[in-house]
Amino acid sequence: MSKGQLVVISGPSGCGKDTIISKVLEKMKNEAFLSISMTTRAMRPGDTDGVDYYFVDVKQFEKNIADDKMLEYAKYGANYYGTPLEPVEKMLEDGKTVILNIEVQGGANIRRLIPEAVEIFVLPPSLEVLEKRLRSRGTDSEESILTRLEIAKNEIKVASEYDYIVVNDELEKAVEDIMSIIRANQLCTNKMKNLICEVICNA
Amino acid sequence: MSKGQLVVISGPSGCGKDTIISKVLEKMKNEAFLSISMTTRAMRPGDTDGVDYYFVDVKQFEKNIADDKMLEYAKYGANYYGTPLEPVEKMLEDGKTVILNIEVQGGANIRRLIPEAVEIFVLPPSLEVLEKRLRSRGTDSEESILTRLEIAKNEIKVASEYDYIVVNDELEKAVEDIMSIIRANQLCTNKMKNLICEVICNA
Repeated sequence: MSKGQLVVISGPSGCGKDTIISKVLEKMKNEAFLSISMTTRAMRPGDTDGVDYYFVDVKQFEKNIADDKMLEYAKYGANYYGTPLEPVEKMLEDGKTVILNIEVQGGANIRRLIPEAVEIFVLPPSLEVLEKRLRSRGTDSEESILTRLEIAKNEIKVASEYDYIVVNDELEKAVEDIMSIIRANQLCTNKMKNLICEVICNA
Repeated sequence: MSKGQLVVISGPSGCGKDTIISKVLEKMKNEAFLSISMTTRAMRPGDTDGVDYYFVDVKQFEKNIADDKMLEYAKYGANYYGTPLEPVEKMLEDGKTVILNIEVQGGANIRRLIPEAVEIFVLPPSLEVLEKRLRSRGTDSEESILTRLEIAKNEIKVASEYDYIVVNDELEKAVEDIMSIIRANQLCTNKMKNLICEVICNA
């Protein structure tokens, strides 16, 4: 069986990528899996270890780095965030699609380390829509919303370094777009070369 | 509006690409169009000028070549076959997807002339299946079937020069695969760069 596909999905907070990803995982059940990140940040109410993140302390995280057990990692403020290598490797060996829902810094790391990864940036239709979505959550302070918008602008500036751009205007359409990208990349000739041989050789 | 997309589809006789293409055109009505080739071969019963091909004489075809009116052309035996430039250019300018249903030699020409074209090779599941399909038509002599199979083998050998391979095992799946490839290529970052700017600039 051909090796699986590593798919990076990034996008600013409020662009709807978490919802898109969970819909994609639902539609590609048994075929696509989400990589669970590891972090040293404190657990918050509602967090589940091994579901939202693997929560570890700094000592453990740094030991993982030293032992080459992280595919990539970055430090945001005082906290480490990263992708544990082993589960990703195992799923790819099994021919599965592995989705990494990571920040643009993680995306840049993966691009450098694994050029054959497929990188998708989810764009909101406009910054006005993004602002509206952030406000409609009703959970963030004015200051936090403005900070998020400023971060979003900077993230969107690096969107052009991704392979694909999906605009989340309509949820269902964005989900279909991501699935089209994943499918198209499975059909790339370099992944299908064995097949050409099989067809000819079985003659 | 962004310029349209040029899609080359090739595959051996009997692989089912004509059926796949007509299904894709049906599903992408007003969005995707088939380029009609020009040929100097004689019309056969059932041929309609301007539908199956544009039928012209050698003098006219060679004048078109001299006047740079052919996007690409090739000679098979005594006959010219080629793609008239103007309708393709016009449809691409209108942002449409233009499908070229052409032989591998035409595919190689397009690859050289227009590297950004998306090239898809349709593969039968196996040569046995291809042979069965050719025989089930009941229209070809034994000799003609064996010749077609020999040509098919040689065509499949160059499949790896295409960007994507679609196996026509189940018709509906092959149609979906081709549409996924077309959609994914519309989402490629270099085609979406204006959008990134729009989102940021409208802020």
